[in-house]
Amino acid sequence: MTTPATPGPTVGELGEHAVIDVITRAAPSALNGDDAAVLFHASPNSRAVATTDTLVEGRHFRHDWSTPEEIGQKAVLQNFADIEAMGARAIACLLAISTPTSMPVSFFARLAAGIDSRVKQYSAELVGGDVTSGNQLVITVTALGSLGGSLPSLNLDRARPDQRLVAHGRLGWSAAGWALLECFGRAGVPAQFEPLVRAHCAPELTPGRGVVARATGASAMTDNSDGLIVDAGTIARRSGVAIDLDRDAIAPDALLVEAGDLLGVDPWHWVLSGGEDHTLLATTAYDPPSGFRTIGAVQRGAGVTLDGVEPAYQEGWVSF
Amino acid sequence: MTTPATPGPTVGELGEHAVIDVITRAAPSALNGDDAAVLFHASPNSRAVATTDTLVEGRHFRHDWSTPEEIGQKAVLQNFADIEAMGARAIACLLAISTPTSMPVSFFARLAAGIDSRVKQYSAELVGGDVTSGNQLVITVTALGSLGGSLPSLNLDRARPDQRLVAHGRLGWSAAGWALLECFGRAGVPAQFEPLVRAHCAPELTPGRGVVARATGASAMTDNSDGLIVDAGTIARRSGVAIDLDRDAIAPDALLVEAGDLLGVDPWHWVLSGGEDHTLLATTAYDPPSGFRTIGAVQRGAGVTLDGVEPAYQEGWVSF
Repeated sequence: MTTPATPGPTVGELGEHAVIDVITRAAPSALNGDDAAVLFHASPNSRAVATTDTLVEGRHFRHDWSTPEEIGQKAVLQNFADIEAMGARAIACLLAISTPTSMPVSFFARLAAGIDSRVKQYSAELVGGDVTSGNQLVITVTALGSLGGSLPSLNLDRARPDQRLVAHGRLGWSAAGWALLECFGRAGVPAQFEPLVRAHCAPELTPGRGVVARATGASAMTDNSDGLIVDAGTIARRSGVAIDLDRDAIAPDALLVEAGDLLGVDPWHWVLSGGEDHTLLATTAYDPPSGFRTIGAVQRGAGVTLDGVEPAYQEGWVSF
Repeated sequence: MTTPATPGPTVGELGEHAVIDVITRAAPSALNGDDAAVLFHASPNSRAVATTDTLVEGRHFRHDWSTPEEIGQKAVLQNFADIEAMGARAIACLLAISTPTSMPVSFFARLAAGIDSRVKQYSAELVGGDVTSGNQLVITVTALGSLGGSLPSLNLDRARPDQRLVAHGRLGWSAAGWALLECFGRAGVPAQFEPLVRAHCAPELTPGRGVVARATGASAMTDNSDGLIVDAGTIARRSGVAIDLDRDAIAPDALLVEAGDLLGVDPWHWVLSGGEDHTLLATTAYDPPSGFRTIGAVQRGAGVTLDGVEPAYQEGWVSF
């Protein structure tokens, strides 16, 4: 286990209420502070969408690799990506923390600042939470979204033959960033690779791309949290179709090739197996929605291929 | 740390997906299994309500005191009580688990059975979750509710002078149960005190009492999770009023007196300081709503008194 580089008194010294104070000061919300948060009035026909994801210290993040702000940004983004992947709009999140009493309270002020910056990017709010003590830092974010109108949500089982597979976001950058951190540590990674490191420590996803995909006729969608082959494979299996990826469309970019050369790793491994990019993968019978590009085709059959042949790397991504 | 008395292969042997499998089999929902859960269409004018609470092994529960089913029931109920305390109706929950790999998978089947029994009692559903590995068992439940119609939610800051304080549920039973467990262990507690032990290990709250209180004119509400004096004090402070409790109305019942005699404890300590009963405390200018009884009066001023004098026990409840 690593320890955060934030100074000052600990949770044990100031108590759990001090943690709640610094969080609500860094990420204020008028909806927070009662037994439960009451969200905005639902618009006509809208449905609520909910998802939850946990980050465990040592397993999903390391204090010597990620700043507290980045951990907060990632905790929010990985949940909001799941909301976007349904074609919905993120509107709120809740934060449950279990922390060793030895953690500096200032860590949580910076964690909450990262959460606040990410939720603000989505015009959302941190509306509630819970802080308790435990042996290990465990951060659980629950995200709530709104699915407007009467179109169905974009589910894993709605891909159909003759659709195209489209993507919004990078492929393999998070995994390459992880490999660089593993080799060099945060301070030692050559400067030109900072975008890859950032993609791992604080992934980004432009708000609203999932809503656009749903509005323009996409039927199935997910985000690549486990790896391109695994996540495309989940859509294929749940929809009863095959997916053929276009080699040219997903070929490693110059930065991935350079990082691969440095580490002696085939960058296709990061593209095909790397997860946590939170890139949106959707299927549609129409032109790619704004911000998306075509990366493959949905066909009759089963499984995932690359230009018609079995991909060299198929396993999913397991960080740590 | 204690270990659960459930047999069979562990999370490390079968993997985290085995945990998801046993949970979704014990608590099935058609809304579960995609990137996020899409809830029911909102009724006109309704608002979503959300809250989250964490149970940490060794801090909030012990395997030698509570069955896995009871832990699941408590994890749901403490969240649903916060939904009820807003005057809302619980409709769904999500479950995030961080678990040591040494935990038997069968533990989670029984935990989920407990969750399922409690959510069914509320006509709600477990609609999603996340399972990851960590050093300690940490169970985070997020509850979602629906607040119908245009009446305001019942908040901590809406008590007004000349209202009465009303309660639905027992006072002090959970704390008495905890004290008995601490002294005798689960197997050693004399049989007549089983209701107190159950109140601690698997608290109950009749579904819908919060909705009834809101519909019949209550203005402020909370549940006594931290202790009667502390929770009534929170309403008093946030509302800028005083609350005077009626000694006769909250006097320890025969079972608490008997347990107090056995343990050499003044049962008033459990009534005034004991938390985790999840009894609803509301203020209203009208007759007590169905299921509630009057236990005090809201007055001009500040603080909480008992028949006009300072209570003998004021601190909140800290289990473990």
